[in-house]
Formats: sequence, structure tokens, C-alpha cells
Amino acid sequence: MDIADWRHKIDELDRQLVSLINQRAQCALEIGRLKGDSDLPVYEPDRERIIFENIARNNGGPLSNVQLRQIFERLVDVMRQIQGEQMMSAKAQEEVSGANELEPLD
Amino acid sequence: MDIADWRHKIDELDRQLVSLINQRAQCALEIGRLKGDSDLPVYEPDRERIIFENIARNNGGPLSNVQLRQIFERLVDVMRQIQGEQMMSAKAQEEVSGANELEPLD
Repeated sequence: MDIADWRHKIDELDRQLVSLINQRAQCALEIGRLKGDSDLPVYEPDRERIIFENIARNNGGPLSNVQLRQIFERLVDVMRQIQGEQMMSAKAQEEVSGANELEPLD
Repeated sequence: MDIADWRHKIDELDRQLVSLINQRAQCALEIGRLKGDSDLPVYEPDRERIIFENIARNNGGPLSNVQLRQIFERLVDVMRQIQGEQMMSAKAQEEVSGANELEPLD
């Protein structure tokens, strides 16, 4: 295989990665919604520890656990970012519906 | 599905991600080896543009292209890091075998 062949393989892997990362984002949004309903905190250090342990346990290389963790730290950051956006948007909607409730009936 | 169910799903997606990311790293090492043989540069901005275009074209959401790019920038950084390590290690081996060649035969 030459460089072009390996790059085609990388492009195919990237398409699969995009799909899996978006599925993971969908799960994070579902969790964010459930957390919003129950007032659980967005940031849970214990959960992050479990995520990184799961990753290390399943690492067959060639990347080191440190390198994998560098990638997943960014991934988890972005997931926290979309949960934050979701929470802000839910709050804004609550305020709008709250304002409506206060409108005079006549 | 409750929070625990969604987290199990995330853990399963993470295991698949670890496998795909390591496959991608293996491809990067093969490219690094071929580049080392042909003296091509490790960093190629045009190739990165193609990677990010491929990602954006295949993004079905919920993540935005900017968010996906944040993740892939870190991924590409780590890939460049392992290619750099590989190059250093190849150079060190060349120096060792070069030193051996200069050893007296007797």
C-alpha cells in the first residue's frame, strides 16, 4: 500500500469516527436532558475517571494511554460544551414560558 | 432509558472509538514510515484541509462542524506526535547502525 492508499483508509475511518462521535453526542444530550429534569450537576469527576479507565482497559495500541486520553479529554470537553448549551437553551425557554404565565388574562 | 443506560451506551461507543482511533494511528505510522523513506514532510497543510472537509461532509449532527473539528484537531495533533516519535526513533537507529559501520573490524 502506498501513501494514497493509507490516506483512503484514514478517510474511511474518519467517516466512521464522525458517526460514532455524533452518536456519543446524542447520548450526552439525552443525559443532559435527564440531568436537567433532576437537577444533577453537569460536571461529575467520578464519571470522567470511569470513562478514562474504560478507555485504558480497551487500549490495544499503538497509541499510549496518555495519547488516547489527550484525545478523549477534548472529546469530553466538547460533550460538556453541548450539555451546557442545551441547559442554557432550556433555561431560556423556561423564562419565556414563565413570562407568558405572568401575562394578564384580559 | 435512564442515565445509567445512556452511560453504558457511551462506554460501548468509547470502546469502538478506541479501536478506530488506534487503527487510524496504525495508518499514520505506515504513512510516517513511507514518508521517512521518501523524505516527504510530516506536516502537510493541504492534507489537513482534506481531512476537515471529509469530516464536515459526513457530519449528520448533532455536533456542529466547529465542534467536530475541535476533536479532530486534537486527534491529528496526536497522530503528528507519534509520527515525530517514529522519525526520532528511526534516526536514532540509523545513528547506531552508522556507528557500528565505523567500528574497527578487528
